[in-house]
Amino acid sequence: MSPENTRVAIIGAGPAGLLLSWALRDAGIDSIVVENRSQEYVLARIRAGVLEQSAVETLTRLGLGDRLAAEGLEHDGIYLQFAGGRHNIDFNTLIGRTVTVYGQQEVVKDLIKAHTDAGSTIYYEAADVAVHDVESTSPRVTFRHDGEAHEITADFIVGADGFHGVCRASIPPKAITLYDRSYPFAWLGILADVPPSTDELIYALHEDGFAMHSMRSPQVSRLYLQVDTADSIDQWPDERIWEELQTRLGVPGWTLHEGAVTDKSITPMRSFVASRLSYGNLFLAGDAGHIVPPTGAKGLNSAIADVVLLGAALVGHYAGDDAPLAGYGEAALRRQWKVQQFSQSMTEMLHRNPGDLQSAAFDYRSQLGRLDYLTGSLLAQRELAEQYTGLPF
Amino acid sequence: MSPENTRVAIIGAGPAGLLLSWALRDAGIDSIVVENRSQEYVLARIRAGVLEQSAVETLTRLGLGDRLAAEGLEHDGIYLQFAGGRHNIDFNTLIGRTVTVYGQQEVVKDLIKAHTDAGSTIYYEAADVAVHDVESTSPRVTFRHDGEAHEITADFIVGADGFHGVCRASIPPKAITLYDRSYPFAWLGILADVPPSTDELIYALHEDGFAMHSMRSPQVSRLYLQVDTADSIDQWPDERIWEELQTRLGVPGWTLHEGAVTDKSITPMRSFVASRLSYGNLFLAGDAGHIVPPTGAKGLNSAIADVVLLGAALVGHYAGDDAPLAGYGEAALRRQWKVQQFSQSMTEMLHRNPGDLQSAAFDYRSQLGRLDYLTGSLLAQRELAEQYTGLPF
Repeated sequence: MSPENTRVAIIGAGPAGLLLSWALRDAGIDSIVVENRSQEYVLARIRAGVLEQSAVETLTRLGLGDRLAAEGLEHDGIYLQFAGGRHNIDFNTLIGRTVTVYGQQEVVKDLIKAHTDAGSTIYYEAADVAVHDVESTSPRVTFRHDGEAHEITADFIVGADGFHGVCRASIPPKAITLYDRSYPFAWLGILADVPPSTDELIYALHEDGFAMHSMRSPQVSRLYLQVDTADSIDQWPDERIWEELQTRLGVPGWTLHEGAVTDKSITPMRSFVASRLSYGNLFLAGDAGHIVPPTGAKGLNSAIADVVLLGAALVGHYAGDDAPLAGYGEAALRRQWKVQQFSQSMTEMLHRNPGDLQSAAFDYRSQLGRLDYLTGSLLAQRELAEQYTGLPF
Repeated sequence: MSPENTRVAIIGAGPAGLLLSWALRDAGIDSIVVENRSQEYVLARIRAGVLEQSAVETLTRLGLGDRLAAEGLEHDGIYLQFAGGRHNIDFNTLIGRTVTVYGQQEVVKDLIKAHTDAGSTIYYEAADVAVHDVESTSPRVTFRHDGEAHEITADFIVGADGFHGVCRASIPPKAITLYDRSYPFAWLGILADVPPSTDELIYALHEDGFAMHSMRSPQVSRLYLQVDTADSIDQWPDERIWEELQTRLGVPGWTLHEGAVTDKSITPMRSFVASRLSYGNLFLAGDAGHIVPPTGAKGLNSAIADVVLLGAALVGHYAGDDAPLAGYGEAALRRQWKVQQFSQSMTEMLHRNPGDLQSAAFDYRSQLGRLDYLTGSLLAQRELAEQYTGLPF
């Protein structure tokens, strides 16, 4: 047993945990990060790829913006495609805001490099991580690392350990309600070694279902297809994926370039929000507290928004003001529910509902009506632009 | 048998049929209206009560605006109420447009008076109404009236005979698709002899369900409650209705005044659109072609929008231009699907979903998030204002 002490013990070395630890270090507050996966695993995990303008500003302010500025792809807008037509929605022209395409794993890579250079304490491959006494003023984290038992005592524990993490699970079930909804479809996502065939992301509602053309870099395309929740990846050989992408994304006079598929996976779609993000001296941030369906590109951005709020609240605490920390959960959840409804409405606007045939046929036409209105109304486009580029942090 | 001939035979003396006949008369095109109900029944039918700005302009342009101008209540906006707070959305300030509260039966009354003064031919209480040969250039309407068989030959037949009318039903099933969806709730509506307790309409999402405070005149209030689809009006004595209205509409410092209930009924909520509004020389307008759930106040306005388009198309035909008539169905349906998605989204934003408990609990909070975003965002409010005050006719 090697007892340690820190101000904030952070569980999870994903973007939320690493960024919080970095923001605290920036304010002179020490923290320790405990992660059950290896650093290699964390670095290889492929997730979101679109940063809201406030997320870019946050990373830049914290000194993490150099590679982001050099390699991130600033996007002025998106395309919405339906009924055989492709329509540009230019956020920058509409409201003067943009988003930046920069993979979540690139954000993590930048954070790990910064922490490594600064000599931060991060335990990877920590086994049997558990949190204790979170209702007391001396909460503890225990885990095994390199065969040794560890115990960290802290002022606060932050659960940035994702949906399946131990922190939210440590809150007594009677003290927390989990709100969630599933969707009757999943996303099949691929990475392909081929320059993107588009300058902006394409969101397409096709009779066969949703499709999306995203990207990771000038050399790497990211593409998605709506598939059945019961589908397995074996049912989707590369040829079938490209064929379906060509069908759903095709418009006259445009070519979707194919390339070697380097990664493919099927992800179910869910919406989830915990009724509280704090319990005693335990605070939740990111996926530990909420999950959005990926259509609005809000998962990573929500985690960063939580961290901005929680980081400032912890800094406030050590400066003698406890109000922000007491209000963290409510403030973060209020923003999160706005983001949830946007993510849900983007998802419902762009996917074919495979449910009961009668209302599914109606809903598809109603969705086309929504897209027809949206692409013809500057007022509707400004609302979309405000939500897509991100509500204030 | 008394054979008659006219240019346009119109089935249905609701607002759509009467207004079309009036617009055609205004352009010097004769028509005959055939209605299976009595004039008294038509005049007493209580329906919608909110006119879009373009609907007001249309009625005024056609010389039907005198009483509307004197007695209609111009409204600058609405209130959205949720989580115990009431928020004003001022359309006039947001986008310079308004709506006018003026009951559908008042519009019908004005139309019937105008037609009576002008000596229009309207057959009320026509029995066994049937349409024939709509694919030919001499379609016919047959019916019995005052014990006599009638036959009207026309250039065109217009079905303004509502959802249950004979006109849409006369289109071969193989030639038409009906898109619809039902909702797991109904509206209980009352008329009460009491001055409205509010200056603008109140739309409220309460934990117990939707409630609305509307009005018909400075002396008459119109109020609605979301109820179960299986509820019968016997289960809702006046005391229970007022009690539930007080609960759902109540906010601190505001009083809902109660009064004698003069009318009450339960209406199911549905969305419905026919895949075509024309077949041969038969054209559909209003509820015969589409139904919206009442939350967005779009039923009557959609009928008027159809009539404006169809009236102009028929006038175009007799001036030698057939293109607008050939394009009527597509143009009217395109507008209608935009209206459908608005009506559906207003409905889904403001009602409690009584379905599967887990996702219903999520959806309620997502709806609150939507309302929280909407009431805090001028951009979102402008979009709502554009749709509520009405898309261009």
